[in-house]
Amino acid sequence: MTSRGRFISLEGGEGVGKSTQVKALAAALEARGISCLVTREPGGSPGAEAIRELLLQGEETRWGAQAEALLFAAARADHVEKTIRPALEQGRWVLSDRFVDSSLAYQGGAGGLGIETVRSINAFAIGEHFPDRTLILMLDEGRDRAMERDRDASDRIGGRPSEYHHKVETAFRLIAAEEPNRVRLIDASGSPDEVTQRLVAALGDLLP
Amino acid sequence: MTSRGRFISLEGGEGVGKSTQVKALAAALEARGISCLVTREPGGSPGAEAIRELLLQGEETRWGAQAEALLFAAARADHVEKTIRPALEQGRWVLSDRFVDSSLAYQGGAGGLGIETVRSINAFAIGEHFPDRTLILMLDEGRDRAMERDRDASDRIGGRPSEYHHKVETAFRLIAAEEPNRVRLIDASGSPDEVTQRLVAALGDLLP
Repeated sequence: MTSRGRFISLEGGEGVGKSTQVKALAAALEARGISCLVTREPGGSPGAEAIRELLLQGEETRWGAQAEALLFAAARADHVEKTIRPALEQGRWVLSDRFVDSSLAYQGGAGGLGIETVRSINAFAIGEHFPDRTLILMLDEGRDRAMERDRDASDRIGGRPSEYHHKVETAFRLIAAEEPNRVRLIDASGSPDEVTQRLVAALGDLLP
Repeated sequence: MTSRGRFISLEGGEGVGKSTQVKALAAALEARGISCLVTREPGGSPGAEAIRELLLQGEETRWGAQAEALLFAAARADHVEKTIRPALEQGRWVLSDRFVDSSLAYQGGAGGLGIETVRSINAFAIGEHFPDRTLILMLDEGRDRAMERDRDASDRIGGRPSEYHHKVETAFRLIAAEEPNRVRLIDASGSPDEVTQRLVAALGDLLP
């Protein structure tokens, strides 16, 4: 019987290098003989991608806070059922560019719904499928401000004001403090290779 | 200051005459000088109608139970925010063809998620906006079976087997027993006019 794979999520604010790092981390794990599925949120399954379009298109006021949080959770339920769980059951590792902690930080912390309320909705959506490890890429305040220039302001969420994005960072730090075993803050400064090495090191206890 | 309108939902299994009765009830209330907004679920606002398309189209297996329940709740949150609450604040009455109790009965009772779990998700979605009165149209068992022939089997939910629809009826009876002040079972037999008179009578304490 194949043993279950590990589920790793990468988190962080806009423009912190998640998309680059999720691919680099997958390459580093594959080099160790671990088969990886790379996915992302919102999206990651056909149903979730359809919901993603509803979430990211249209006016900023298109969805209220509750509807937005429920749509993210619905997409996540589909992502788990159709993509993540089947891969884990085949023994593959799953690396997701954003997952539940983005909802906790964006809709819960920055959006004002409350981290615990959003966690409860998401616990319904994903059941036992919280990540085995969540790596949150963090830059210090000064670098953070510089990164704002690179933020993708073309969608409903990336386009929100800086104050919102600072609240997201604060929420990520709070979540990491609450769940130190699952969630680790990773310094995102330095060269991409240096950052990837830090990510791999933070998975040390999970590696075969 | 305009006093807040009343929010009434009509519920019941497939083919029990809800769409006809919601219009007839609106006409009866308008004749009493009450301005009514007639709406329906899933849908009732542009965002909720977009979610409705995701819910009713595609294969039966397109959405798992959790994703489906969350999509219904997301649509409902949008329906409340964009359509129902503004009308109530203008002093209009809102009559909705299906609302939260359809989720409790279909996804919670018949779908196996549990009525309380689905109620909790929906309490997040709609806040204080539970209906002032919910009227559930019921037919006795024999009539119910006859009505199955008329059920709309062309969408993902109407097309489910009879056993599912019998569980829906059972859940509606349970909800009515739990919340006797808000929820009333209405005999749907007899002529349409007779049924409308029963609906109006069940609103007696709310009429101006």
